[in-house]
Amino acid sequence: MSDDKRQAALDYHAKPIPGKLSVELTKPTETAKHLSLAYSPGVAEPCREIALDPENAYLYTGKGNLVAVVSDGSAILGLGNLGPLASKPVMEGKGVLFKRFAGINSVDIEVEADSTQAFIDTVASIANTWGGINLEDIKAPECFEIEAALKQRCSIPVFHDDQHGTAIVTAAGLLNALDIAGKTLAHARIVCLGAGSAAIACMKLLIECGARAENIFMLDRNGVIHSGRSDLNQYKAQFATETPLRTLDDAIEGADVFVGLSGPNLFKPEQLAKMAANPIVFACSNPDPEIHPDVARATRSDVIMGTGRSDYPNQVNNVLGFPFIFRGALDVRATAINEKMKIAAVHALKDLAREPVTKEVLDAYELDSLEFGRGYIIPTPVDSRLLEKIPAAVAQAAVESGVAKKPYPAHYPLKSVKAIYGQ
Amino acid sequence: MSDDKRQAALDYHAKPIPGKLSVELTKPTETAKHLSLAYSPGVAEPCREIALDPENAYLYTGKGNLVAVVSDGSAILGLGNLGPLASKPVMEGKGVLFKRFAGINSVDIEVEADSTQAFIDTVASIANTWGGINLEDIKAPECFEIEAALKQRCSIPVFHDDQHGTAIVTAAGLLNALDIAGKTLAHARIVCLGAGSAAIACMKLLIECGARAENIFMLDRNGVIHSGRSDLNQYKAQFATETPLRTLDDAIEGADVFVGLSGPNLFKPEQLAKMAANPIVFACSNPDPEIHPDVARATRSDVIMGTGRSDYPNQVNNVLGFPFIFRGALDVRATAINEKMKIAAVHALKDLAREPVTKEVLDAYELDSLEFGRGYIIPTPVDSRLLEKIPAAVAQAAVESGVAKKPYPAHYPLKSVKAIYGQ
Repeated sequence: MSDDKRQAALDYHAKPIPGKLSVELTKPTETAKHLSLAYSPGVAEPCREIALDPENAYLYTGKGNLVAVVSDGSAILGLGNLGPLASKPVMEGKGVLFKRFAGINSVDIEVEADSTQAFIDTVASIANTWGGINLEDIKAPECFEIEAALKQRCSIPVFHDDQHGTAIVTAAGLLNALDIAGKTLAHARIVCLGAGSAAIACMKLLIECGARAENIFMLDRNGVIHSGRSDLNQYKAQFATETPLRTLDDAIEGADVFVGLSGPNLFKPEQLAKMAANPIVFACSNPDPEIHPDVARATRSDVIMGTGRSDYPNQVNNVLGFPFIFRGALDVRATAINEKMKIAAVHALKDLAREPVTKEVLDAYELDSLEFGRGYIIPTPVDSRLLEKIPAAVAQAAVESGVAKKPYPAHYPLKSVKAIYGQ
Repeated sequence: MSDDKRQAALDYHAKPIPGKLSVELTKPTETAKHLSLAYSPGVAEPCREIALDPENAYLYTGKGNLVAVVSDGSAILGLGNLGPLASKPVMEGKGVLFKRFAGINSVDIEVEADSTQAFIDTVASIANTWGGINLEDIKAPECFEIEAALKQRCSIPVFHDDQHGTAIVTAAGLLNALDIAGKTLAHARIVCLGAGSAAIACMKLLIECGARAENIFMLDRNGVIHSGRSDLNQYKAQFATETPLRTLDDAIEGADVFVGLSGPNLFKPEQLAKMAANPIVFACSNPDPEIHPDVARATRSDVIMGTGRSDYPNQVNNVLGFPFIFRGALDVRATAINEKMKIAAVHALKDLAREPVTKEVLDAYELDSLEFGRGYIIPTPVDSRLLEKIPAAVAQAAVESGVAKKPYPAHYPLKSVKAIYGQ
């Protein structure tokens, strides 16, 4: 990052006031009478109602539209383990996206814990404060244990976005890309470079969507994850295949799909050259992808390419997922974000890319036209129809799969969060 | 509370959207460029800076203007132990007051803990998220252990408002009342009905302000706390005096001050009748005081009376304290709210009541005049000079007592939080 860009980012965070979020009042507080309702003695009434029935917290407090963004700072973006406090700008940034895209209030919680169990105990004991928990930037394999334990102990949705948000958006783009390439998930040979939490969640979700485990080759720093390796944790071991392939060079030969969730420039042009016709390359390392889109296109004109970058087509960006998934989950008071809800989000995202783009999208990207195809396989974050389509699909799946405590909202699909939530 | 008032309080909390607070954006987020500063990739820069120096969190995140309001719901207002979730409306209400009076952002945290130690561990492990912690509605004696442990483990101010906020406001009013009565704290005979956390903190602070321990008679449900009792916890035992007095009837004889921090109607007219000339009665049980102001005045015309009620003169209200105390502490980045800062707040509050009232106060109470005296011993919450006087005094005391990590602010005294914090 250039010094100018660096300074712009620091200034944005520091000026005119530190940070990116504030807490504001939603009810009148001008008069003594207002304050006697907001606080003592009036506030005793909602307290009593909640004591009678905990569900009343959704009626009288902000709980139902409040998500905690929780991290220990052990895997911050591409920066690694910088500790809890250094993750705070990211967690507040997530809060910005929750609000900006889906009208969801959020608080960030940075946890300093001696052990995975201490992290779990801490979060579980305060979880009821919120309507949902978004786990963020927690390193593997701890994140798997944390998520599993919190899901079991909490009666609100717990969602590790680095895993499932990434997986949902990747799967949506990939399904469209395969279609454009004239291939199917069931027959696609998939190479996944990277075996962290995002990679594992992506491949799991692809299998749920129809990919075959035997067609997936996952690689970590030590090469292909195969059944002969003894250095695998239980999470990687799920993806160990019986195969003589050992390196990326081996595995990429004839592959239909490359998913990079690793690091910059780890995928070489000569490796791309060995892939099957109409190869699909999702190089998601950010900001520097596994292979630069310009390099990939220069290597093969038939490549269908996605990255995490906003300045190239097909941005595989988590912001397409988590705000809308939580919006749908919160609106039917789902007790979890389950597999059916995730898959519903995948299909809603996939389908939206197939609809004609709106003027707002063309204007935002200064384009005359944009049509479903190699250069447009996934919706853009500026598409306001995301708020109509994704929460509705997620909410419906929650209702149908029996985890919703409220019916599908009458005001769905959402045209505007502001109009409905008044915020 | 009447059905009408009850319904008004519930409606206030439920409509048009549940709760009283929202999280809003303070920086532009319209364009892709804005979002690339607020989140990836720009957000990496402040993360790096904080990893280099944790103090940078105050520069690039909301930490420095963010207070957590933390409770286990074990002593909610006068309602008792209703559990963590039922306390949420009060904690959000506290957030309303923090914002409304001092521009401070807050988050509420309701902790479900099996033990006092578990509560302490939970809060300590997430404390660094915020610039300060306001403990609230936690029952005695657990609150003492919790506060002491968190003060030791956290490098940010930890303040149990039910104790210290109440004590500060009570002490300020009492110093003025004594002056008007022609008495001094050093010679005043003080009866304190109630021996909970507020009572203990009040009497401690009065001693620090000059009251004599041997002149203080504290009573719990079992009567006067005296050195012959074997049923006292360590916190009450500090107030055990060598005395033959056993009941409120005994203790009140010739007393100069009655402080009620107990329950409704526990102080009888015939007990008031036995007090010394110009008796001072702070009947702080809320909404129903230990003795009704009308009853007290009918009993003795020389009484100087304070209550927690906004519809009678001399409202002893915590909102005169905590927003401004935290404002001062945050603005000099104090690592604690120490005794010197509390005493500075007492004197600033006391002194403000002696200044001529402003038009805003007269208008708010629909009065033609209000002068320092029996009917006006403590500022009113609508007095905007609280924001000028209290934070400045607290900040100065923090600097002088060596707990401030930033100098006394150049923009002090604060005329308006909005003008300075842009919120």
